[in-house]
Amino acid sequence: MQPDFEDMTVGRTYEIDGSYDVTDSEIKRFAEQYDPQPFHLDEDAAAESMFGSLAASGWHTASMCMRLLVEGFLDPESSMGGKGIDELRWLQPVYPGDTLRIEVEVLEKRVSESRPAIGHVRTKLVGYNQDGEAVIEWTARTMHRRRDHEHGREGGHGKE
Amino acid sequence: MQPDFEDMTVGRTYEIDGSYDVTDSEIKRFAEQYDPQPFHLDEDAAAESMFGSLAASGWHTASMCMRLLVEGFLDPESSMGGKGIDELRWLQPVYPGDTLRIEVEVLEKRVSESRPAIGHVRTKLVGYNQDGEAVIEWTARTMHRRRDHEHGREGGHGKE
Repeated sequence: MQPDFEDMTVGRTYEIDGSYDVTDSEIKRFAEQYDPQPFHLDEDAAAESMFGSLAASGWHTASMCMRLLVEGFLDPESSMGGKGIDELRWLQPVYPGDTLRIEVEVLEKRVSESRPAIGHVRTKLVGYNQDGEAVIEWTARTMHRRRDHEHGREGGHGKE
Repeated sequence: MQPDFEDMTVGRTYEIDGSYDVTDSEIKRFAEQYDPQPFHLDEDAAAESMFGSLAASGWHTASMCMRLLVEGFLDPESSMGGKGIDELRWLQPVYPGDTLRIEVEVLEKRVSESRPAIGHVRTKLVGYNQDGEAVIEWTARTMHRRRDHEHGREGGHGKE
């Protein structure tokens, strides 16, 4: 299910196919490169922290959910990239051995006034662990090529 | 300059030491794992896209800025992790060869009413490229151990 702009139904929640297995080694590899705080790198430091044991960087959790979104929701033919994210919340820690899945609700869609070949969409994503606990949520603003409209290179980060 | 809660000055903008060199290979490696959309993976596909040439995943740009934040701003002794992010905007594409740096403004800080050993801080981060163009911005909500207060394992993603 990778709907284009025309097929997205406002108010519908899409349960996205696919899941992401969180591993100890990937948590550490991501943290070493992008978020080298002790509780994302080292079991002993994490045991002393508020997480209680090694936990994924919040940006890693977001990135894993993005992978599920790209593979299970965003139509590669019409998706034009994102403008931004609002109300991102890390609701629960993500640990090695967790399995993530996501749901996406379409909150709003509208045709660009200045460029009718482009549709703007607001979606809410919620990521869950294997126990059904919500671990992350955000709302996203994305752009999509409309069917049967001429288009150039507009769109992408920071354009419009 | 890695101020703890007490040393952070509301209204001050901190120019963070350190920079991050964006490479073609890292853009593709990140995208393969977390954001496999054509314009983040392949030059030819990117040339056809709204980006015009290969561009970093927005989540990759955020993660690179997080690295600069951890190494240049967050005090490892007192930083307790983040609650969430608001108003994240990808303002300009990030390309191979770009060099990123960040600035952080302290917007607000307050002591937790329920747990006075913890301080809550709101900061605004702006990421710039080598031409001084803002490429990303967000506001963050983070938690910090206060000086000279007893503390347990409170805090971390999703706690309070």
